Amino acid sequence: MTVSPTRIPEATVARLPVYLRALNSLLDSDIRSCSSEELATAAGVNSAKLRKDLSHLGSYGTRGVGYDVEYLRYQISREIGLTQDWPVVIVGIGNLGHALANFSGFSSRGFRTVALLDADESRHGELVAGCPIRDFGELGQIVREHGVAIGVIATPASAAQAVCDQMIAAGIRSVLNFAPTVLSVPEDVDVRMVDLSSELQILAYHEQRKAPHVEGAPGTEGVA
Amino acid sequence: MTVSPTRIPEATVARLPVYLRALNSLLDSDIRSCSSEELATAAGVNSAKLRKDLSHLGSYGTRGVGYDVEYLRYQISREIGLTQDWPVVIVGIGNLGHALANFSGFSSRGFRTVALLDADESRHGELVAGCPIRDFGELGQIVREHGVAIGVIATPASAAQAVCDQMIAAGIRSVLNFAPTVLSVPEDVDVRMVDLSSELQILAYHEQRKAPHVEGAPGTEGVA
Repeated sequence: MTVSPTRIPEATVARLPVYLRALNSLLDSDIRSCSSEELATAAGVNSAKLRKDLSHLGSYGTRGVGYDVEYLRYQISREIGLTQDWPVVIVGIGNLGHALANFSGFSSRGFRTVALLDADESRHGELVAGCPIRDFGELGQIVREHGVAIGVIATPASAAQAVCDQMIAAGIRSVLNFAPTVLSVPEDVDVRMVDLSSELQILAYHEQRKAPHVEGAPGTEGVA
Repeated sequence: MTVSPTRIPEATVARLPVYLRALNSLLDSDIRSCSSEELATAAGVNSAKLRKDLSHLGSYGTRGVGYDVEYLRYQISREIGLTQDWPVVIVGIGNLGHALANFSGFSSRGFRTVALLDADESRHGELVAGCPIRDFGELGQIVREHGVAIGVIATPASAAQAVCDQMIAAGIRSVLNFAPTVLSVPEDVDVRMVDLSSELQILAYHEQRKAPHVEGAPGTEGVA
């Protein structure tokens, strides 16, 4: 494999999925090459930052021509590891687990949901996105069978740590946590948390500064 | 209002929700004061960064005592704007919209879902989290009535831009987008995007570097 041997800065890693999405949307519009400015606009970042980020991947574009969209998409996909197969299990099949199981963005980018697990026996056997809900107790066997490396937690907060511990015991070393709670894990395990309310809080911070609101007086926000 | 008049760095703003979550979990464990190291551990950041971030809010703690957990939580909540009331509409009540409507993390932090809207007539009147699903055509009236400032888009990607345009026409200036597509908006509108697959991609990047995978050979990832 020809993945960069050096570590890419974490902030750059976090932007690679954004570039990938922008490149996909350019390809959807049948745009085959683009300047760094065009790609930066599509990705919503400034072009100097984009060029610096891509230089970590050894991609510099061609003067006067720009970047080959398809090749750059391949380079980024390979760098992230999306040219590999990533078997994933989702634990907790409530509304959010359902949404994740149905989410085309997962399956289309190298991730393959091999099992949906839930502790609720009455749900076992139910098909979600063509995949049956199975008992959480089968986790260890499923991880061994499919070589699962990534576990997704979509349980309530109260169950998340126990689920995480079981995932680690089964050999999973990368956990994506949607439960609104901080998980404790050993050092060699990566956890990323998607806190659905954080982004709303960041919006509120900016919204508050756009127009003076009257504290505690709903409905007076002066929306045009 | 006593919100900081100066802009806080964007990276600090993004960490405020993380500190808030850590403070809430300390209070849940009945911890009333904490050192910057303790809070940094609970939040998963380094303590020098935490002290710097909090200094932007004018919070320095007390030597030998540390931070008053409840007061710091109040300061951060006020800074973000969570001591105000934020009426929110959610558009697109599929599985994800359902999950968001039911998500306690929204309602418990100053956000109040005033309406759930969906284009599918057959769903109208259905109750989700105690709130009836209404017609998307009522958006303008609902925004005026409740002074809605924040709109949440949980539709398929194909519908998201049209929904966003309607939100802006109705006076909404802050949009939280869960649809996997980049939205075009005027300069005075803030959009934040939650891309559910980005975090999975970032995990894959790190996972790939933990152990050598064999490209294209599923099930050989060498999980212990």
